[in-house]
Amino acid sequence: MPEYPAIEPGAVIEVMDRVRTRRPLIHCLTNQVAKNFTANVLLAIGASPAMVEHPDEAEEFARAADALLVNLGTLDALQMESMRRAIAAATAAGKPWVLDPVAVGLLGVRTRFAAEILADNPTVIRGNASEVIALAGQNGGGRGVDSARDSRDALPAARVLADRTGGAVLVTGGTDQIVCRACEAATANGHPLMTRVTGIGCAMGAINAACTAVADSPFLGSVATAVWLGVAGEIAAGKTARPGTFQTALLDALDAMDGGPLRTRMRNGFGADACNSWHPTT
Amino acid sequence: MPEYPAIEPGAVIEVMDRVRTRRPLIHCLTNQVAKNFTANVLLAIGASPAMVEHPDEAEEFARAADALLVNLGTLDALQMESMRRAIAAATAAGKPWVLDPVAVGLLGVRTRFAAEILADNPTVIRGNASEVIALAGQNGGGRGVDSARDSRDALPAARVLADRTGGAVLVTGGTDQIVCRACEAATANGHPLMTRVTGIGCAMGAINAACTAVADSPFLGSVATAVWLGVAGEIAAGKTARPGTFQTALLDALDAMDGGPLRTRMRNGFGADACNSWHPTT
Amino acid sequence: MPEYPAIEPGAVIEVMDRVRTRRPLIHCLTNQVAKNFTANVLLAIGASPAMVEHPDEAEEFARAADALLVNLGTLDALQMESMRRAIAAATAAGKPWVLDPVAVGLLGVRTRFAAEILADNPTVIRGNASEVIALAGQNGGGRGVDSARDSRDALPAARVLADRTGGAVLVTGGTDQIVCRACEAATANGHPLMTRVTGIGCAMGAINAACTAVADSPFLGSVATAVWLGVAGEIAAGKTARPGTFQTALLDALDAMDGGPLRTRMRNGFGADACNSWHPTT
Repeated sequence: MPEYPAIEPGAVIEVMDRVRTRRPLIHCLTNQVAKNFTANVLLAIGASPAMVEHPDEAEEFARAADALLVNLGTLDALQMESMRRAIAAATAAGKPWVLDPVAVGLLGVRTRFAAEILADNPTVIRGNASEVIALAGQNGGGRGVDSARDSRDALPAARVLADRTGGAVLVTGGTDQIVCRACEAATANGHPLMTRVTGIGCAMGAINAACTAVADSPFLGSVATAVWLGVAGEIAAGKTARPGTFQTALLDALDAMDGGPLRTRMRNGFGADACNSWHPTT
Repeated sequence: MPEYPAIEPGAVIEVMDRVRTRRPLIHCLTNQVAKNFTANVLLAIGASPAMVEHPDEAEEFARAADALLVNLGTLDALQMESMRRAIAAATAAGKPWVLDPVAVGLLGVRTRFAAEILADNPTVIRGNASEVIALAGQNGGGRGVDSARDSRDALPAARVLADRTGGAVLVTGGTDQIVCRACEAATANGHPLMTRVTGIGCAMGAINAACTAVADSPFLGSVATAVWLGVAGEIAAGKTARPGTFQTALLDALDAMDGGPLRTRMRNGFGADACNSWHPTT
Repeated sequence: MPEYPAIEPGAVIEVMDRVRTRRPLIHCLTNQVAKNFTANVLLAIGASPAMVEHPDEAEEFARAADALLVNLGTLDALQMESMRRAIAAATAAGKPWVLDPVAVGLLGVRTRFAAEILADNPTVIRGNASEVIALAGQNGGGRGVDSARDSRDALPAARVLADRTGGAVLVTGGTDQIVCRACEAATANGHPLMTRVTGIGCAMGAINAACTAVADSPFLGSVATAVWLGVAGEIAAGKTARPGTFQTALLDALDAMDGGPLRTRMRNGFGADACNSWHPTT
């Protein structure tokens, strides 16, 4: 891959401002552990969360919402039906949807289901290295929901997925890798305490849905997600070294974020000019 | 409507004291996002929460509990069955039940289901203006779970519902409107930060169930709910301007509430003498 | 029962160190109210949580995880199937499993289900006095999930259960009683504020699964659970008298715990030498 010039913080700040102004309504079909925290994270960034689970209503609501999140964490048969119908409705209505393939590659039902809905071309895929590698059908691995692998190991898989879907892929880890057909970037914000609170990765998928709903491209929405959450994590970790208070401080920091600390702290070592095009698969 | 003299803070304090002394057991059939926070809010006010979901057990438990909360936020077919059976059991046992018609008017399944269980005469209906208007079969509207309308716009609908059920209706918003067949009141406590934490409205329905379980009337239980929660929100907002710490501070303030700040801060601009009668539909 | 010499704090510290070093992966089939908090408690003690609900995946995952938690709090038919299959898989793989019989004796479906899975010999049973008495088939009682009875009242029932299963029984309350076939202990750490936050008892079952996954015996794992959580509760209560901030402080205290405060505060008035043997029923 060629080296690209760094992304300007201004592009991230623009996404952040749009989320707060437009308050996108995010339909979350997500896991039972992360529902409450995900809703609070969306409210903290200025978006509107809604969790609508009944299959009939999930289909109905996906048309009205600004973006859809599909997180496979605690998948069951009923939720699979809701997801299928919501994805179809969102796609038909031209709304972006984010796939978070939690523990794909590790467990059978969700691995098959993820392969099925991958054919519906998620606008963004957000996962750790093991999940992205498994989703691309390359060799999997991983233990539970923690990724044992470096996010850079998943770059070939991420490129395959971006090429197949026409959307963006965000591989999270020590550094976050963002890939679409035309551009690549990496960001290096965040803090190890973020792995000590449940649901931060899942909430990241929801932030990604909100940012992608308002950004000029899924790529930019994903970069903004990685930076906004990562910088908030650093600020929260500056207030406490313990996970209980960290969870609270993270919500506060997402809400308080503005251009100042974001410009100072944003770290993307290599990257791309803002990629403003979306590359839908036709 | 005639002007009524203001409600005395002492009537609210009496309800608060009874909740803490009697510790009513509140059976919550509520949405997946708000379950944890709702339980913590009930514990913070001194009540006992219990979430029993299996239809057989929901029926069994509704007889034993002191009040039932039915919140439609993440309705599915199984929970509808649990709700039907719990409502029947609570009603047969003479226990009050609160209906929170989340997003009714916006989504089909829950709108039909709410119309069905409305016939069982909920002791209290707690919703925002759009939900109350839709539940009364008047013109709906609203976007997700946020109400775009002023609570006063729903007064005609609230009166229709109170007349039909014989219970109280609490319409929440910038001001909270409380209506029963004989009395009306409005309270003006609360803070905008309360819209930045998920589940506060849902937890309000649970507080209402607890207060109504011990109050002399559903009307008084609803007034006490609006004031207790609203004043706690103001106190919490005095400690922090950010949503993460606000959520924590709100639980602390509900627990710490006593007559002093409640007397100082309670705002009900127009209202009624304490309505001590319950007007069941026979 | 004979008097046993006190358990050395060093035995508890050894379990704590192993949890942090080995990071056991705990499969939690638990109730909807406590899922998020349980995951955060497991992360705070240094373990890895995972909630996998689909019956096929629950069976698959139980083989891979280091221990299984089965909590009956919001049981439904689907979760019962997941529990049956996960218990069978964990047992076949030689992994410990913890039964938390929430509200057994009070509600019919779970009481029958608990009797059924008791035959699979849970490695640890953790409940309050009413639940343990009911599970042993002795006279029940209790109101909701709160126990009205002293934990010592359940000692005869706990002995019956320990004898039947070959595992340990942890009866929680003002004092915590730990019983296995060969040994008994009681600990007296904790604070009344721990009853003011939902899910602490449920999270205790998860801590027990993590400690038992690494301890030399289920008995020792259960003693370590009672002490670690109880001392953390005392430390958190030293920081705040209110339930919102207490919840946060408890997570921080679980994470921060080390040998110093644990040695100073650990209270077990009577007890046993560390029981290093597991007594499986064959």
